[in-house]
Amino acid sequence: MIVNPLPRYEILSGEAMEALDRGWRRIVTELGIEFILPEAVEEFRKAGQKVEDSVVKLDPEFVLEQVAKAPREFDLQARNPERTVRIGGDHMVFSSVYGCPFVRQGDDRREATMADFENLVRLSQAFPELDSPGGTICEPNDRPLDSRHLDMVYALQTLSDKPYMGSVTSGPNAADTVRMTEILFGGREAIERTPAVISLINVNSPLRYDDRMLSAMLEYNRANQAVVITPFILMGAMSPVSVPAALTQQIAEALAGIALAQLVRPGCPVVFGSFLSNTDMQSGSPSFGTPESAIGLLCTGQIGRHFGLPWRSGGGLTASQTVDAQSAYEAVMTMLPTFLAGANFVMHSAGWLESGLVSCYEKFIVDIEVLRMLQAEFAPLEVTDETIAFSAHEEVGHGGHFLGATHTLERFRECFYRPLLSSTENFERWKSKGERDAAARAGEIWRKTLEEYEQPPLDDAIREELAEYVTRRRAELGD
Amino acid sequence: MIVNPLPRYEILSGEAMEALDRGWRRIVTELGIEFILPEAVEEFRKAGQKVEDSVVKLDPEFVLEQVAKAPREFDLQARNPERTVRIGGDHMVFSSVYGCPFVRQGDDRREATMADFENLVRLSQAFPELDSPGGTICEPNDRPLDSRHLDMVYALQTLSDKPYMGSVTSGPNAADTVRMTEILFGGREAIERTPAVISLINVNSPLRYDDRMLSAMLEYNRANQAVVITPFILMGAMSPVSVPAALTQQIAEALAGIALAQLVRPGCPVVFGSFLSNTDMQSGSPSFGTPESAIGLLCTGQIGRHFGLPWRSGGGLTASQTVDAQSAYEAVMTMLPTFLAGANFVMHSAGWLESGLVSCYEKFIVDIEVLRMLQAEFAPLEVTDETIAFSAHEEVGHGGHFLGATHTLERFRECFYRPLLSSTENFERWKSKGERDAAARAGEIWRKTLEEYEQPPLDDAIREELAEYVTRRRAELGD
Repeated sequence: MIVNPLPRYEILSGEAMEALDRGWRRIVTELGIEFILPEAVEEFRKAGQKVEDSVVKLDPEFVLEQVAKAPREFDLQARNPERTVRIGGDHMVFSSVYGCPFVRQGDDRREATMADFENLVRLSQAFPELDSPGGTICEPNDRPLDSRHLDMVYALQTLSDKPYMGSVTSGPNAADTVRMTEILFGGREAIERTPAVISLINVNSPLRYDDRMLSAMLEYNRANQAVVITPFILMGAMSPVSVPAALTQQIAEALAGIALAQLVRPGCPVVFGSFLSNTDMQSGSPSFGTPESAIGLLCTGQIGRHFGLPWRSGGGLTASQTVDAQSAYEAVMTMLPTFLAGANFVMHSAGWLESGLVSCYEKFIVDIEVLRMLQAEFAPLEVTDETIAFSAHEEVGHGGHFLGATHTLERFRECFYRPLLSSTENFERWKSKGERDAAARAGEIWRKTLEEYEQPPLDDAIREELAEYVTRRRAELGD
Repeated sequence: MIVNPLPRYEILSGEAMEALDRGWRRIVTELGIEFILPEAVEEFRKAGQKVEDSVVKLDPEFVLEQVAKAPREFDLQARNPERTVRIGGDHMVFSSVYGCPFVRQGDDRREATMADFENLVRLSQAFPELDSPGGTICEPNDRPLDSRHLDMVYALQTLSDKPYMGSVTSGPNAADTVRMTEILFGGREAIERTPAVISLINVNSPLRYDDRMLSAMLEYNRANQAVVITPFILMGAMSPVSVPAALTQQIAEALAGIALAQLVRPGCPVVFGSFLSNTDMQSGSPSFGTPESAIGLLCTGQIGRHFGLPWRSGGGLTASQTVDAQSAYEAVMTMLPTFLAGANFVMHSAGWLESGLVSCYEKFIVDIEVLRMLQAEFAPLEVTDETIAFSAHEEVGHGGHFLGATHTLERFRECFYRPLLSSTENFERWKSKGERDAAARAGEIWRKTLEEYEQPPLDDAIREELAEYVTRRRAELGD
C-alpha cells in the first residue's frame, strides 16, 4: 500500500461532470437496471422503487441516499496485522492478476493448474509491491469445478498472509469464503468489525446484474465484507462506442449495485469498480492499454471522488500475446494513469497477459518492476536548501564530476531507484552474458523468487480447521 | 505538432519553487558559470557582469532581464509551409532520435552509415506523428568527419520537407548550416524573419559551456535561428545525486546560456532545454525512463513556464540494449510524463535505444505507436448529451450488445484509436501467423514504409545550389 501524495490528474470540467450526472440519472430512471435475482428486486420494491419484472427503475435521489451510507474509506484486515490495508482516500492497494484460464512460462502457454495458482500466490506474497495476491490468480483447471473455490481460498489463506479476494461464482461459494475467513480470523465478530475479504462483483453490462454474482454479493454484504462492484465494459460490445457514454453507463450500473448493497446492510464496505476498455473494431477483439481506456481511467477517478467512494481500476493490462514491447507499453499506458488518477484498489497489478486470458510468470516480473518504479515516482519530492546541495557544487566546481564527491558517497546507496529487472549494462557486457532480454531475465527472477519463498507462519490448529472445512465441504459438493 | 488541451501536471509547490529560485541565484552569483570562449566572456563583461578568467559571476536580476527578452513562443519554418510548427505555449513538436553512433536492425547492431541516416530521415518524413527528423539522426561514420555535417544537412533538406536541426560541432559548421538554410528558404532575410533551423546546444555540465558549442550557438543567435540550450545532466555524474539539486543546476546553466544569446541578439528564439536522468550507481552507467527522470521532467515543465520560456525534454528514452519489454516501459515512462508536462519541443521521440548509443529501426516504429497513442489520448474529450448516446441504450437494452447497433455502425471507423503496430489477434491466429512479437512486426512496418516513401518535391535550381555548396565546401575542408 502506498499513500499517493502527488496531485490527482483530473480532466473532466464541471460542465462535463454535469452532463455525466444528467446521463446516469436518465438511465436509471427511464431504462432502469435489471437484477436477475428475485430477492434483489424485492429489496428495491420494499424500498419504494418501481419494479417491472426483473428491471428496477430507480429514483436517482434514492440511489444517492443509499450511496451516501457507504464508508468513504475502510480497513481490510490481513491475518498478519502489518499487512492490513486501507482502501480509499489517498491510499493505493495493489493486487495480482485475476481470472485467467491459461498460464504462460517463457514460450510455454497452457491451461493453468493448481500448482500454478500456488506458485503465483507465492510470488504475490514475496514482492512487497503487492498488497494482495488477489483471488483467482489463475483458474486451477485440474481441480473439480464445484469445489475449486475451496482450494483457492485455502491456498490464499495459507501461502500468503496478505488480504485476499473471495469466490463470487455463487452465493454458497461466497458463504464458504466467509466461513473460512471466520475460521482464519477467529470468528464472525472479528470479521464483521473489520472486513477481512474483498470480492469482485462484475456487472453483466449493459445494465444487468446476473443471479450468481448477485447472490455472492448479498452474502458478502450481509457479513460486512468488502465488494468491488464493477461494470465490465468493453466499449463497442458492452457499451456504446464513446467514452462519455461508457462513463455514464458505468455510473448508472455501479451506483445501482452499491445502492442494493447499502439496502441489504447499511454502511457495508463497497468499492466503485471500473473495468473499461474498448473493442478493436477491426478484429472485434478486446484492446487494452488504449488511449480510450486511459482517458476512462482518469475520468473514473474523478467520478469516484465525486460520489465520495473508494474506487478500483487500472493494472498492467495488455492485449499482447507475449512479453514483448507491446505488452510493456500497454501495461504502462494503463498503470501510469492508474497512479495519476489515484486508484484505491488496483487489480491485475502483476501477471496480466493476452487480454486477461493468461497469467504470465515473466509478465508478472515486468509488472513488478513497473509498479516499483511508479511507487518510487509517486512519492514526495523534498525541495529544501539541503536537498539543493550547494556544497556539492562547491566541492566539484566547473566541469568536474560528482561520482567521487563526498555528497555522492554519503548517499549513493539510497539516492536513486534501483531496478529489479532493468539492465543498464553496456552492450559488450550484455552480449557476453548471453544477450538476455527483459523477458529472459524475468524468467530467472521468478524462478529465484520461488526458490527463496518462505511460507508465512500460521497456527496449526487454524490450518487444521481450514483443511477440515475444505475436506468436509468438498465431500458435500460431491467432488 | 499537437496542441495539448489537457491540464499540465504540476507537482512543485510554491515553497519548492522558491527554494529552487534561491538555489540557482546562489549558483550563478557565488560560483558563476564557465564559458570557454573569450568572445562569450567579453559579452558578459561588457554588460557589467563580474568576470574571473573564463568564469562569469552573474547578477540574477541581470539574467532575468535578458531572459525576459526571449520570445515566449515562435514559429519554426518548414520549406513546406504546411509543416511549419509553433514552439511554445500548448504546442508540442516532436523530432526523432539524435546523436547515435550505432544503428540496430533486428539483431544486427553496427556502426551507422550515411545510408542509415538517409533511411531514418525518410522514416521521419513518412510518419505524420513526427514534425521533424531532428538533426544527427545517426552519425554517418562512413563520411569524413570534417564535412559530414554538409551531407547531413543536405539529406535533411532534400529527403524531408519538415523543419530540421543544424550542426553544432563548431562555429563554421553552424555557419554552413545557416548558409544552406538561406539557400533553401531564399535568402538571409527570409530566415531572419522566421527561424528555419533549430539546433541543440548542450551545456558541458556542471556549470561549463565549451568553445565549440558556444561558437555554434553564437552563429545561430546572430542569424536569429532557434537554439535549444540544454544542460546535459546525468545525476551522480554531472550533478549532485538529488533531483532538486539537478533542477537548480539546470536552471542556473540554462538561464546563463539564454542570457548570453539575448545579449548577442535580443529577442532571438531560444528553448529552455532539459536532458535529465540519473546514473545507475551500481554500474556507473546512465539510466533512462527512471522515476527520477520522470519527476525531473514534470518539474522542468513547471520551471520552463515559470520563466516564460518554451522548453524541451522527453522522448522515448531507454537504457535497454534491444527492443524488449524494458525498452518499451522505459520509453513510456518518459513519453507519458512528456505529455503530462506539455513539453514544447520533444527530441528523441522515435528510434532511441541503448542509452542513445543506437538509432534502432524497430524501436523507431514502437515509438511511433506510443506517440500516436498519446497524441490520441491528449485530445479534448467532448462530454455532451450527444456523446452520452442515450439512444444507443434504448436501442440495445439490458444485457444486449452494441456491436451491431446503429449508433455503433455509424461510428465504428473513427470511434477508437486504430493501432499501427499493436496486435489484438487471438492466440491461435497469432500463432498461425508465426508468433511475431512487436519487434518482428515493427521490422515489417519500417521496411514497407521505406518502400512506399516518396521524396517531397524540391525546385531543381535550389537542389543544385545546395549540392554545389556542399561540393565546394567539402573541397575547402579537404575531404
